[in-house]
Amino acid sequence: MKKIKVAIAGYGNLGKGVESAIKQNPDMELVAVVSRREGLKINTKTAKTVLYKDVLSLKGQIDVMIICGGSATDLPEMTPFLAKHFNVVDSFDNHANIPKHRKNVNIPAKEGENVAVISVGWDPGLFSVSRLYAESALPQGESYTFWGKGVSQGHSDAIRRIPGVLNAKQYTIPREEALTKVRNGEMPKLSTKDKHLRQCFVVTEEGADKDKIRETIVTMPNYFADYITTVEFITEEEFKKNHSGIPHGGSVIRTGKTGDGNTCNVEFSLKLDSNPEFTGSVLVSFARAACRMKNEGFSGCFTIFEIPPLYLSSKSAEELFSTML
Amino acid sequence: MKKIKVAIAGYGNLGKGVESAIKQNPDMELVAVVSRREGLKINTKTAKTVLYKDVLSLKGQIDVMIICGGSATDLPEMTPFLAKHFNVVDSFDNHANIPKHRKNVNIPAKEGENVAVISVGWDPGLFSVSRLYAESALPQGESYTFWGKGVSQGHSDAIRRIPGVLNAKQYTIPREEALTKVRNGEMPKLSTKDKHLRQCFVVTEEGADKDKIRETIVTMPNYFADYITTVEFITEEEFKKNHSGIPHGGSVIRTGKTGDGNTCNVEFSLKLDSNPEFTGSVLVSFARAACRMKNEGFSGCFTIFEIPPLYLSSKSAEELFSTML
Repeated sequence: MKKIKVAIAGYGNLGKGVESAIKQNPDMELVAVVSRREGLKINTKTAKTVLYKDVLSLKGQIDVMIICGGSATDLPEMTPFLAKHFNVVDSFDNHANIPKHRKNVNIPAKEGENVAVISVGWDPGLFSVSRLYAESALPQGESYTFWGKGVSQGHSDAIRRIPGVLNAKQYTIPREEALTKVRNGEMPKLSTKDKHLRQCFVVTEEGADKDKIRETIVTMPNYFADYITTVEFITEEEFKKNHSGIPHGGSVIRTGKTGDGNTCNVEFSLKLDSNPEFTGSVLVSFARAACRMKNEGFSGCFTIFEIPPLYLSSKSAEELFSTML
Repeated sequence: MKKIKVAIAGYGNLGKGVESAIKQNPDMELVAVVSRREGLKINTKTAKTVLYKDVLSLKGQIDVMIICGGSATDLPEMTPFLAKHFNVVDSFDNHANIPKHRKNVNIPAKEGENVAVISVGWDPGLFSVSRLYAESALPQGESYTFWGKGVSQGHSDAIRRIPGVLNAKQYTIPREEALTKVRNGEMPKLSTKDKHLRQCFVVTEEGADKDKIRETIVTMPNYFADYITTVEFITEEEFKKNHSGIPHGGSVIRTGKTGDGNTCNVEFSLKLDSNPEFTGSVLVSFARAACRMKNEGFSGCFTIFEIPPLYLSSKSAEELFSTML
């Protein structure tokens, strides 16, 4: 079997998650990691490192590039540029800007006759397609998305910027009362505050004013002011021991009514020890889809909504029909 | 907006479920119900009834036919025949025979330049595609399917055939211990007996030998012998009051490992007050997909694995990208 040759652009947590996912897929091999960093060391001994300025040297050497950059500034530039030269996959997650990103990527992908898959992972990604299947079957109803329990990198960063804070981790936690009502099919109206709690673990400098730090956190606009927020001060040792992981998860739930008021509840949920490793695993399955679609003559930019699910699997259509339907 | 004109072939529980689902979709209208029964009365006053022998009189009058027959004898004949003349959707659920059914339907559908969608509903259907997404992302792991709590029509029928039994309902119930282990990511090995219980409610003739009936049930090969089965004898009144619904549901769960042994749990679950109404609702969303694919020039037989999810929704692609991704 000819293996799918993959490059990873960006070698942070997500890039490393993709790297370990590729190892679990015998039909794929990591050929190169592209990075702006000089002298980068990577885990896969059989792959090479390439500086981002030399990325076009990979033309003809890879089947697909998985772009592991940030959605704020990296992906809006990298994905359109790279889609002209390679089949690409990204995890662009700025929901409001997805339509614009799709347009920006579609033109160069068409020009280069490549397949670009954007905004995959779990939200956007598997959560999105679960919303679509459930709402298509149950057009009359309510949909809910709960995130967590999991680490919000943005909220953790916001706490770390407060003077006197050495380290911090913020967990987003769905509120049990709300989840229970939704799972019972009660279709409650829920405010932001009703749905999630924010739990913060904070390491401070010696002699820091903890009351002031706590107050700064819980009143921080956009991040915490609209939530019930708990703040616990811990030592660096405890932080390392209990809060070094990057777990996440959540649930997409739709409640609909059928017939004369019968209730249907559809739920898709994830519980992930490692958010970047799972996101990387999803990206890898869509990298396979990108290659297959390219081989079948497709080109342009695609989201999870436009991709026939069978392209994701390494198994043949016949095998899927006989074992997984 | 030009509405999608739908016909239903078969007017049992599933056909009626489709009928009520069509009412919830403003882009669709029920035009006809096809049946072998003379003098059939249907709920939708604006639709006509057509005898099955005259089904071809609907040519040119409908966009898609939803075939609501049984998988044992009806669908293997009806779907290939009707696919030559109409876009069709069925819920063929004999898992082992799906590949054969697909081939038998594909040829006439291609000949007639129609789109046939087979084996949709929830299992096969939404459960199948959930298995596919989860296994594609997590190739190393274990998948589990639990059914229930819900009514098994086949098992209920088997009990009703026992002499002395007037009425019976059998619920398939997932075993909590097993579900908990799977949800905890323990990846247990589970036998048939470990996964489900069978709970039976039975109404008997006066003077019937209940001990003998109980024994006949719990030792019945294939149906009950391999399970923990409970049998409760109740009155016809209690039966009507508490056991007249057709609820069902279940869960597809995949546990995978990422990185250095991090656990990921992916779960899709359903809780349905009415199994046929929900199945009918899913069929209707795939009827829309069949029409759209036909309009885009597709023909042949498709399963849920081959259909881009956006075809299911009445919303435009642009609306889906900006609201549901």
